Amino acid sequence: MGEFELIDRYFKRPTTRAVLGVGDDCALLQPTAGMQLAISSDMLVEGRHFFADVDPSTLGHKALAVNLSDLAACGARPLAFTLALALPRVDEIWLAPFSRGLLALADSHGCELVGGDTTQGPLNICITVFGEVPQGQALLRSGAGAGDDIYVSGTLGDARLALDAIRADLALPAELLQDLRHRLEQPTPRVALGLALRGVASAAIDISDGLTGDLGHLLKASGVGATVDASIAMNLIAVRAHSTWANGLFSHEKLLQCVLAGGDDYELAFTAPVAARDAVQLASHQTQTPITRIGQVEAEPGLRVVDDQGRTLQFKAASFDHFA
Amino acid sequence: MGEFELIDRYFKRPTTRAVLGVGDDCALLQPTAGMQLAISSDMLVEGRHFFADVDPSTLGHKALAVNLSDLAACGARPLAFTLALALPRVDEIWLAPFSRGLLALADSHGCELVGGDTTQGPLNICITVFGEVPQGQALLRSGAGAGDDIYVSGTLGDARLALDAIRADLALPAELLQDLRHRLEQPTPRVALGLALRGVASAAIDISDGLTGDLGHLLKASGVGATVDASIAMNLIAVRAHSTWANGLFSHEKLLQCVLAGGDDYELAFTAPVAARDAVQLASHQTQTPITRIGQVEAEPGLRVVDDQGRTLQFKAASFDHFA
Repeated sequence: MGEFELIDRYFKRPTTRAVLGVGDDCALLQPTAGMQLAISSDMLVEGRHFFADVDPSTLGHKALAVNLSDLAACGARPLAFTLALALPRVDEIWLAPFSRGLLALADSHGCELVGGDTTQGPLNICITVFGEVPQGQALLRSGAGAGDDIYVSGTLGDARLALDAIRADLALPAELLQDLRHRLEQPTPRVALGLALRGVASAAIDISDGLTGDLGHLLKASGVGATVDASIAMNLIAVRAHSTWANGLFSHEKLLQCVLAGGDDYELAFTAPVAARDAVQLASHQTQTPITRIGQVEAEPGLRVVDDQGRTLQFKAASFDHFA
Repeated sequence: MGEFELIDRYFKRPTTRAVLGVGDDCALLQPTAGMQLAISSDMLVEGRHFFADVDPSTLGHKALAVNLSDLAACGARPLAFTLALALPRVDEIWLAPFSRGLLALADSHGCELVGGDTTQGPLNICITVFGEVPQGQALLRSGAGAGDDIYVSGTLGDARLALDAIRADLALPAELLQDLRHRLEQPTPRVALGLALRGVASAAIDISDGLTGDLGHLLKASGVGATVDASIAMNLIAVRAHSTWANGLFSHEKLLQCVLAGGDDYELAFTAPVAARDAVQLASHQTQTPITRIGQVEAEPGLRVVDDQGRTLQFKAASFDHFA
């Protein structure tokens, strides 16, 4: 099967919203009047972002999910995406489930595949996603103010625990490992929450590289600092509530590390004025997205993590760095 | 140097047209009222699209040029682009000239770098470019009609000759090799010509995989066929006019092969009604882009290549296929 047949078979579908989809030199989108276009691009590399033996269907899901998560963090509604794909060889056993997982998530968000590129090379998946947001309403990293509350959606740390468990080949209860794997391999982009937070949140970012690192980016962009309560943050790791959870399987310190600097969570961290607490709860309720208030923005720069006695924990605000 | 410092040093610049550039979860563009957004994405892989020892500055140029060429083929004006980059390691000796070559071409087209991604992995460059075109005025592959003239911009075949010469380590006169290399490594995207052809050309495509292959895509999309004159097409290869050209260095057949199916040309192939000949010449003149009329669109499907006696040449309409 050649390049063009591959595209036709797995990636070319009629577009319903784009003016022109796969098959010409460019795709064409017709922007809605009064809307701004939000754009994000992510590249996934084998061995770096996923294991070679990962289920191609979940990989297809994740490749788009990490991009949709960026749109969510801006409060943008997904419209379309392009897919550039380097493949070692044409392998239909791989391509069929990959495109199925990818397009299932795309369909669930009304996000059309409109173009891209395929080539021969070490496995590499690069997706660029487009969304729209009313002019001036995008959630930015730079809008947090001293006194604002800090929230996190969903759960944190489980994806990193899964990564470590898989890497170290830990013998975990099957059901537990499966749940952890799901968090690592099939993150849920918080698109609906992002949309509901327009006009409510003062700043937002998606947590891809770890809570403290990404929250640190938000604080820096806003020119503020914050204090986060570690004892509340600890409750964010879902694994502790798991029925097959065996106490002592992981140390408290390990779990906290995963929560604070695990990475691969694809949850939203956002800030909102205290006066918006009801509105934040409403956004959470309307979108059926659990959220947790974990701290407070402060004028003093830097991110402080404190225990339930208010004592500052010695925690290096680390973030995942692809070249560190 | 880490990921974020790398981005700051080499790729983050103030944006003048985009609402928001590098540094948040998404970039934000404000579409112009009445305009459609044209999008194209290309991925370049080491060993496939360029040699490992290529000058990083020309690689930066080419990575964007191949994308701008797609905008040109649609008659779209460049606005912005994203860059996703997988690098084996942080190498400033490579990054500095790469970003210089990339941004020099970007600046010359007023095309802003607004976002992207960097990660560790086998060298891979994925650029997604955005342009705008008035609603309904994009040049498509599908508009050619029987009787239309077929044109090609610039020169064809020299890039492939360069590739073959480099691969085979041919001993060519230095000046000749340098000119050939330039065509291979620093293609000129025909953006101005594409803009001038709005409302003039009936269909257009950029020649990246070879004339016959890409023209074949255009004809198929338009539901027509064509005859191309090989003796005219032969004049498209610039190397024959070169002062250090040694007759007999390459066979006539080899040169014709390069012209018809060489690839990496990044010229425009386009069609226009006979009644538009003056308008086509004007577009060529105004944009200082040489163009050559090489054949005629016909109702009968298929692409026929004939010699100066009108005899059909047995030429397989081949196109570059990354998986063939």
